[in-house]
Amino acid sequence: MIITLTTDFGASSPYVAAMKGVILSLNAEVTIVDVSHTVPPQQVLQGAQVLDDVTRLFPPGSIHVAVVDPGVGTSRPIVYAEIGGQRYVCPDNGLLGRLAERENPAKLVRVTNERFFRQPVSATFHGRDIMAPVAAHLSLGLDPDELGPPLAELRPLDWPGAVKVANRIEGQVVAVDSFGNLVTNITREMLAGVPTDETVAVRCDEHETRSIFTTYAEQPPMTLIALLGSTDQLELAIVDDSAAIMLGVGVGAKVDVCW
Amino acid sequence: MIITLTTDFGASSPYVAAMKGVILSLNAEVTIVDVSHTVPPQQVLQGAQVLDDVTRLFPPGSIHVAVVDPGVGTSRPIVYAEIGGQRYVCPDNGLLGRLAERENPAKLVRVTNERFFRQPVSATFHGRDIMAPVAAHLSLGLDPDELGPPLAELRPLDWPGAVKVANRIEGQVVAVDSFGNLVTNITREMLAGVPTDETVAVRCDEHETRSIFTTYAEQPPMTLIALLGSTDQLELAIVDDSAAIMLGVGVGAKVDVCW
Amino acid sequence: MIITLTTDFGASSPYVAAMKGVILSLNAEVTIVDVSHTVPPQQVLQGAQVLDDVTRLFPPGSIHVAVVDPGVGTSRPIVYAEIGGQRYVCPDNGLLGRLAERENPAKLVRVTNERFFRQPVSATFHGRDIMAPVAAHLSLGLDPDELGPPLAELRPLDWPGAVKVANRIEGQVVAVDSFGNLVTNITREMLAGVPTDETVAVRCDEHETRSIFTTYAEQPPMTLIALLGSTDQLELAIVDDSAAIMLGVGVGAKVDVCW
Repeated sequence: MIITLTTDFGASSPYVAAMKGVILSLNAEVTIVDVSHTVPPQQVLQGAQVLDDVTRLFPPGSIHVAVVDPGVGTSRPIVYAEIGGQRYVCPDNGLLGRLAERENPAKLVRVTNERFFRQPVSATFHGRDIMAPVAAHLSLGLDPDELGPPLAELRPLDWPGAVKVANRIEGQVVAVDSFGNLVTNITREMLAGVPTDETVAVRCDEHETRSIFTTYAEQPPMTLIALLGSTDQLELAIVDDSAAIMLGVGVGAKVDVCW
Repeated sequence: MIITLTTDFGASSPYVAAMKGVILSLNAEVTIVDVSHTVPPQQVLQGAQVLDDVTRLFPPGSIHVAVVDPGVGTSRPIVYAEIGGQRYVCPDNGLLGRLAERENPAKLVRVTNERFFRQPVSATFHGRDIMAPVAAHLSLGLDPDELGPPLAELRPLDWPGAVKVANRIEGQVVAVDSFGNLVTNITREMLAGVPTDETVAVRCDEHETRSIFTTYAEQPPMTLIALLGSTDQLELAIVDDSAAIMLGVGVGAKVDVCW
Repeated sequence: MIITLTTDFGASSPYVAAMKGVILSLNAEVTIVDVSHTVPPQQVLQGAQVLDDVTRLFPPGSIHVAVVDPGVGTSRPIVYAEIGGQRYVCPDNGLLGRLAERENPAKLVRVTNERFFRQPVSATFHGRDIMAPVAAHLSLGLDPDELGPPLAELRPLDWPGAVKVANRIEGQVVAVDSFGNLVTNITREMLAGVPTDETVAVRCDEHETRSIFTTYAEQPPMTLIALLGSTDQLELAIVDDSAAIMLGVGVGAKVDVCW
């Protein structure tokens, strides 16, 4: 059985290890995998993007714990969800919004049964005290209906959708990867029928590039290019360098495609 | 069997992987967990804090290897210790000082038996050449008495204690977490009987805040607050931002509580 | 069975987790170990150094996947190699050059059989779509001859060799470790017969130090020292500080040893 962890605690944070200790104390046989701990602090949007990009690649039935939780200590619910054959335990704050857009959750439970929590529950670290032990109990075969009452629906994610009008798509940067590539909310589906040759222009801030490529290696170093990346979203990249640094833009920057 | 690693090698350091290779070559069945590799270089104090915060959460009998080792290559001893049901292998330089304050070690051995070392032993990397193979042998069932002679006592940690006088506690920042929260040496026990309402003032440098909260979410963004965090130590935090950056202070800064 | 991962994706990158998801979906029993994900972007030289330093420490038969791949999406081959009892899957771009200098590969296969790839294969992420699933299939017992045709030889690594002339060795910095130590291409073998006392001078840029030490702890803090480090290569270090920052030099800087 696999449990993955996605948090905004920072690379190599001891808080992550605290969650692993709690999990392994309940089930020493589980395989724990780090998805990412460098979601920017409290950025639910980027957490939702990471969960959508990565967790679908794991074996069906894997349990994914996500702790990007600006509301920790308030009354925001914690949710158990089954989506696309995967299982999730996280705050109900939009983190599952990208996944739930693809496929309706097969099951939603509000996690309230304190029998499966670590005691005492702190006010500031529900990852360690609630989500980690709940995931460990699930990995041991706990019926999720034991966790609490059904939940009618997930809190929606305030995801900035791209808009297609006539010969133009208006989108924005939704993530910056570790190479400095700017990942947008303009998807492969939206680009169906859009030309990929020099007749198409992609603009961000005052910068413009023409054509949509499929690899980084087709152009000389230091060239700004647009390409359809490995997550099926349009990216802006500088060949062999960081577009985020060279263009001086980040999450939220407007990106337009015109043809 | 679980072996955890705590070092100051930096996130994703290949030195950590070298230790894992040595361990897995001796026992391929062991589960290795990273506690933290971002202890600031050679900061024994912060290493001791991390070990105390995290390792107690692991299953009893887990083996914790800690390499924060400014004296590597000198005659400082390497120690095997049993404290609170957990097992430790590390330099005897104060790293176990926080744990040993809670509970006397049940066993202390000076690690000298070269039969369990990797050969040749380098002068600069005892984590790979001594501590990793010793931990692996222990995970295979080695009797710790085979490692060397008994050790009378651990070298103490030069831990800056907080002081309580009349209506005032004088402490200091002992760690900065990845959110920029300032963790102090003022504990939940010391705060017993201290008011938590507006009659209490917490001061750091020229900054002051009133009341002691229990969650980050009770105050508006950008507010400086004092709260009792998940490690039972008083923290100073800026809601939704980094107190370390906003206040410009770090480890060693004085923190006073007055009421 | 062990699969290790070495990439330039950055610490805690979700791209790494994507590879792990693909591997675990094919073989949930495999042990995955991170070697390093902080190889500087597209620096094949440093990737080759890390693979040489670390992978030889793992149990024989371990499978090492390395993704430092500036040519992704072009026709550069992907290779399966057996060297020194270890197995490797990576782009054929010099990454195995340091290892192959020590020992001729026992087997080389060009990886072309799409039956073992994830479909569809993206143009930008062969780590996830080719190398991860190929490694997983190998861990399940796949005969490497099934992967494709034999490869005659590896593409060589453009490794800057140090040169020994009369009473002088001219080398350069080939890596900077996480402590800021400057690791050179001057090896223990080249230093055989060279004095280690004050008659030897080690120069880098306008900086000079005398003697070659074996530990960091022999000199006072803030002293520049030369020492033979744990990887058997000459290092320049500042005791208790970062030589890279204090000297303002990095990979490629010339280092001379004179006696």
